Amino acid sequence: MTKELILLAHGDGGRLSREIVETLFLKVLGNRYLEALDDGALLPKRSGRPVYTTDSYVVKPLFFPGGDIGMLSVFGTCNDLSVMGARPEFLSCAYILEEGLEIETLRRVAASMAEACERAGVKIVTGDTKVVERGKADGLYINTTGIGYLRDGIHLSPARLKPGDRVLVSGPIGDHGIAVLAVRERLALSTPVRSDAASIWPLVEKLLDLGGSIKFMRDPTRGGLATVLCELAKSSGHSIEIREDAIPVRDEVRGICEILGFDPLYVANEGKLVLVVSKKGAERALDILCSHPLGQEASIVGEVKEGPRGLVVLHTRAGGRRLVDMLSGEQLPRIC
Amino acid sequence: MTKELILLAHGDGGRLSREIVETLFLKVLGNRYLEALDDGALLPKRSGRPVYTTDSYVVKPLFFPGGDIGMLSVFGTCNDLSVMGARPEFLSCAYILEEGLEIETLRRVAASMAEACERAGVKIVTGDTKVVERGKADGLYINTTGIGYLRDGIHLSPARLKPGDRVLVSGPIGDHGIAVLAVRERLALSTPVRSDAASIWPLVEKLLDLGGSIKFMRDPTRGGLATVLCELAKSSGHSIEIREDAIPVRDEVRGICEILGFDPLYVANEGKLVLVVSKKGAERALDILCSHPLGQEASIVGEVKEGPRGLVVLHTRAGGRRLVDMLSGEQLPRIC
Repeated sequence: MTKELILLAHGDGGRLSREIVETLFLKVLGNRYLEALDDGALLPKRSGRPVYTTDSYVVKPLFFPGGDIGMLSVFGTCNDLSVMGARPEFLSCAYILEEGLEIETLRRVAASMAEACERAGVKIVTGDTKVVERGKADGLYINTTGIGYLRDGIHLSPARLKPGDRVLVSGPIGDHGIAVLAVRERLALSTPVRSDAASIWPLVEKLLDLGGSIKFMRDPTRGGLATVLCELAKSSGHSIEIREDAIPVRDEVRGICEILGFDPLYVANEGKLVLVVSKKGAERALDILCSHPLGQEASIVGEVKEGPRGLVVLHTRAGGRRLVDMLSGEQLPRIC
Repeated sequence: MTKELILLAHGDGGRLSREIVETLFLKVLGNRYLEALDDGALLPKRSGRPVYTTDSYVVKPLFFPGGDIGMLSVFGTCNDLSVMGARPEFLSCAYILEEGLEIETLRRVAASMAEACERAGVKIVTGDTKVVERGKADGLYINTTGIGYLRDGIHLSPARLKPGDRVLVSGPIGDHGIAVLAVRERLALSTPVRSDAASIWPLVEKLLDLGGSIKFMRDPTRGGLATVLCELAKSSGHSIEIREDAIPVRDEVRGICEILGFDPLYVANEGKLVLVVSKKGAERALDILCSHPLGQEASIVGEVKEGPRGLVVLHTRAGGRRLVDMLSGEQLPRIC
């Protein structure tokens, strides 16, 4: 059987464009919004304030242990909405395809997006497909843009941080980055590392029930936990201290990081949550996290301090202290 | 002076990512939504129903007479909202940059987007930047996704078409496609062809005042006027007849099409409108179009007919008839 391939004409808006929409996208991802085949989707009115976010996905390779570019493009955008306190609801999906891509690969990616949408409780309501010549685009790139609706009474902001607030992470860090790196570099691992790609909305939704004690949330993707904390320290006007021995890292992730000279603090995650909670609310937040499958290994990793604005200090396992700085120069390109 | 170039690290979420956001994007495109530097934008509530659309732009070359990829990425997405009857209001903007791109080029593109936003009355409220290795992405690709709000009482749909309705276009067709082609193929033209890239919302807004007599609108981009009419004939269940001598085409566009073997009916436009209006409302719609600078050369080009569903018939200048079919096989790749 010959393999069906993507041609430039699949992106020209004519017969082949229409064909791939009808025989692939609608079959796999169809819903009443997409099926209207309009230039856009007419969405229902909602009472909450809309939250809007966009991300392009250029991860290499397209498939890796625990996930693929399609799943990532759904969960990643949903997570950006979730950490703003908004329930993800509608996604757009725009493909840039490389001429010569196997249509079967596109079908697998679209099917993975459909499954991820189901799990995240969102719908893809409008889309676009462009095709570029062979040698461009590494198979495919995906953009998803998402709309969510803010829960009433939610106010998350770095400006709400106060000394004494606790910093929590929802589980072991670095899984996604190392999973992608290991397959890209063909590392032979005794215990394969799987990406943590997941929608964190179920965690966020339960945490928001705690009300005002939840002050800030972020998903530590590109740049990892360190980058989130550095930006947070800067924008909150406080310093942040974290304890290395409290930060969960899987042994296999730590091992690969040591061999290759990476710092897990900077490695990307795709299903984790960093949050700042008032001192009083921290234990309850930890209980909520630990009672959910996605947060079983959650941990209180540090504390907001008075003191030099923008500083992040790590108390090392060996009893020392070191400054945590923003990443300068890329550590792991094309990780999402 | 050495040229500053895009590095892979500009896409890794660390210091350089932050720097380009602060020193380039915020300076050129800044507004209070972007300046929040959050994972997403918190938008105001609106009373109308939201309309949602996405498009990626991969046009080659990045700059062409009458426009560039940045301007196109704003107007194109605004126009998709406009033809749904929705006033464009918010855009997201996601760049995929090629390592080695001159930062000055990116600045020019962003400045062009800012100017286009100003003209179209929209704001870019959230964004993303990824970087891929040299040799990928032809400089840069852009995705914009847009939200508009439907005007009350608007119902545009192919299902509303009836025999006798008139088909109008807002001006000469094929300018955009030929402008891009001419610069890409380095054609030496005595009269250069400029892209028609523009926001058509001002035209649409005035036309919507005519109420129910406006039945359908579409912007004839990839695949051109022919593709819009073929899809419309199919989805409306009617046939459409058009007259070649009524379809405005600039002499220079017609000339290049003849030399290169293109049919202007299939060439892309980026600032034109195709609409179907009741027989009774057609002259008023034409007056509205002609009284606006964007529609001065508007024309009634055809009519909806009973009769075989999906058929589009062209009455040629020479007095013959031919079927207009959907494009099969690409005519002009990478045109938007």
